[in-house]
Amino acid sequence: MNEMLEQLGQKARRAESTVRSLSTNKKNEVLSAVADKLVECSPRLLSANALDVEAAERNHMAAGLVDRLLLTEDRIRGMAEGLRQLVDLEDPIGEVLGMKKRPNGLLIGQKRVPLGVVGIIYEARPNVTADAFGLCFKTGNVVILKGGSDALHSNEAIVDCIRETLEEKQVTSDAIQLISQTSRETTAEFMKMNQYVDVLIPRGGRGLIKAVVNESTIPVIETGTGNCHIYVDDSADLENAADIIINAKTQRVGVCNACESLLVHEKVKDELLPVLAQRLRAAHVEIRADEQAAALMPGAVPATEEDWGTEYLDYIISVKIVSSAEEAIAHINRYNTKHSEAIITNDYGNAQKFLDEVDAAAVYVNASTRFTDGFEFGYGAEIGISTQKLHARGPMGLLALTTSKYIIYGNGQIRP
Amino acid sequence: MNEMLEQLGQKARRAESTVRSLSTNKKNEVLSAVADKLVECSPRLLSANALDVEAAERNHMAAGLVDRLLLTEDRIRGMAEGLRQLVDLEDPIGEVLGMKKRPNGLLIGQKRVPLGVVGIIYEARPNVTADAFGLCFKTGNVVILKGGSDALHSNEAIVDCIRETLEEKQVTSDAIQLISQTSRETTAEFMKMNQYVDVLIPRGGRGLIKAVVNESTIPVIETGTGNCHIYVDDSADLENAADIIINAKTQRVGVCNACESLLVHEKVKDELLPVLAQRLRAAHVEIRADEQAAALMPGAVPATEEDWGTEYLDYIISVKIVSSAEEAIAHINRYNTKHSEAIITNDYGNAQKFLDEVDAAAVYVNASTRFTDGFEFGYGAEIGISTQKLHARGPMGLLALTTSKYIIYGNGQIRP
Repeated sequence: MNEMLEQLGQKARRAESTVRSLSTNKKNEVLSAVADKLVECSPRLLSANALDVEAAERNHMAAGLVDRLLLTEDRIRGMAEGLRQLVDLEDPIGEVLGMKKRPNGLLIGQKRVPLGVVGIIYEARPNVTADAFGLCFKTGNVVILKGGSDALHSNEAIVDCIRETLEEKQVTSDAIQLISQTSRETTAEFMKMNQYVDVLIPRGGRGLIKAVVNESTIPVIETGTGNCHIYVDDSADLENAADIIINAKTQRVGVCNACESLLVHEKVKDELLPVLAQRLRAAHVEIRADEQAAALMPGAVPATEEDWGTEYLDYIISVKIVSSAEEAIAHINRYNTKHSEAIITNDYGNAQKFLDEVDAAAVYVNASTRFTDGFEFGYGAEIGISTQKLHARGPMGLLALTTSKYIIYGNGQIRP
Repeated sequence: MNEMLEQLGQKARRAESTVRSLSTNKKNEVLSAVADKLVECSPRLLSANALDVEAAERNHMAAGLVDRLLLTEDRIRGMAEGLRQLVDLEDPIGEVLGMKKRPNGLLIGQKRVPLGVVGIIYEARPNVTADAFGLCFKTGNVVILKGGSDALHSNEAIVDCIRETLEEKQVTSDAIQLISQTSRETTAEFMKMNQYVDVLIPRGGRGLIKAVVNESTIPVIETGTGNCHIYVDDSADLENAADIIINAKTQRVGVCNACESLLVHEKVKDELLPVLAQRLRAAHVEIRADEQAAALMPGAVPATEEDWGTEYLDYIISVKIVSSAEEAIAHINRYNTKHSEAIITNDYGNAQKFLDEVDAAAVYVNASTRFTDGFEFGYGAEIGISTQKLHARGPMGLLALTTSKYIIYGNGQIRP
């Protein structure tokens, strides 16, 4: 293994027991201090960031990506605010669940403990640096960050501020480490450091996530892509349906819980679609529809097979007519990415059937898919939205960064 | 992809929604019927098994492995009994956890659902075939089995019996499928069928598990290896300590929760070790000790660095003297496989410290490590013992074969 990674892994494992054992008070004290420090360090962060932004512009990075890369005084205050919010959240570490007495007298319970060393691989978004540290530190984990190379100066400056604060607070600064070699080879090696890293969380677009899932030998929490559907049942309140569709499609288009595809029961297509088409056009949404739907939606272009499986992350929606809730459910289970799915209905049976049979992290009756979010679900924080089935599914709060261990109190028991 | 695997994956996905929706009563009816059928099919199973056993003996398979491969009337009754025990267990599927009302009126809860399609890769142990089916079926999962090639005839016969019973009970027989191509290439492809398989569980020795962890792109539940320690503190009741050590080392040596390494506080070495050496010798246990311990244990051979990291699965134990609980904890966290660890002590502080600081799936005070087991922990079943930190840690009962999905009841909510 690359010597730099080897050393970094060893440092992380050495820091692990210290970070795991910090009291909640101490962790909160550090998080507040880091928040203050980031604001205090603004000039340093801004000049480091300027180097990254200049290089990005020189290299003709797309405007949207440059915007994600850009730090401002306001955004630095936002990062600090995110850390302060973590202070108020309950510390999940140390709770013991379900302590039970076995017939032989053994007392067996499950204690919530940190995962250990968490690896985060992300793109050129410097705000993730502070955010990932905060979430991992609050849950007693050591974090190793591998950010996008385009944000390297920014990330180094942020990590320096955090490490300085940790030292001032007499906590090992190895609680956070940044991989500053940004070659593909380094990243590939990092994803195989099973000895030193307990879990790997990719945060970013589909390409990044897919690469991590395919290459990592470390357990991965897959976050991400959302080809989310709304199905309008024949019993739906159609005005409400249109409001929900417009919200789920247009409130923010570049996010994983936005609606990408609409399924409409044939009995309500004539009443719903012309009105809806007007509202979608007013919101600059391109409509890609099957033949029946296109006939009712002026300006619609024909949908292809590829559309049903596409997460647009854009002002585009696909529309398909179905003849039953069953057909809608089958279509969704075939094309969705197991993220968020909604039915709009007033039929009890169809609501229950949809909740039962649609296979996704979050299944809604009569609400916008846009609510799939750690804050909206009341977790006060979000690591990401898991679209896998192991460990965590759906919006992940602090609990997703914990595991458990069995603790067993005996008085001399041996196995007969 | 291999066409056979492609078809098998498609069949599994098609069977998934049926199996997921079966009522508990129906699942129990099928499990009982399969149990009866296996006993009824004994002659068929025994003759298929005879082919495997003969071939194994022709190929000079080790006696221990042939024994694991062998089916007898008794063992078939044991397999059936295992399935009948599952009938009595509570069905975890469908329970809704923590339904809460959000400020905007959304009702959000987590419903326990099956994982979907579970892949099991195992060695030449035909009993795993029925066991894995039972566990997966009880939890509403479809199972795809890839057993060792040496047990192929046996596995085919068992799977045929199960599929026949499923058909008789009008449940899709694709609830269980066996991969009958046993080449390495097929196995390698199977481990990358992310589209069709939700989780992969290797059941077997270290080599098998490591190969699956390294090669699979499907999420894996790692089970397994146990380099388990017992630390005898200076405050321990030494008679009790010796009883626990003998039990943990010798009650069954080939299992992952057996004790492999002993750490003894220097203050009690003189009193404990000579007596213990006698009892270990009487039980035919080879002792590999550091210099101080060897001086007190006649017949001991010197331990090497390699010994501290070795899971013997044999009548061998390593012994090391330490000067504090801290040193014992540091040694364990360095060399253990995160399985099961025990302290024998009467000191409150050291007991708590050990429980807090040792990083393992199960940490014991004053009891044998041999209790780390799904049945001993009261789960009534065991899929394996997870030594990873994601999803499940320690003995896995039926819950480990489930995931959750958020179900959300709204009345028109949109995101502001």
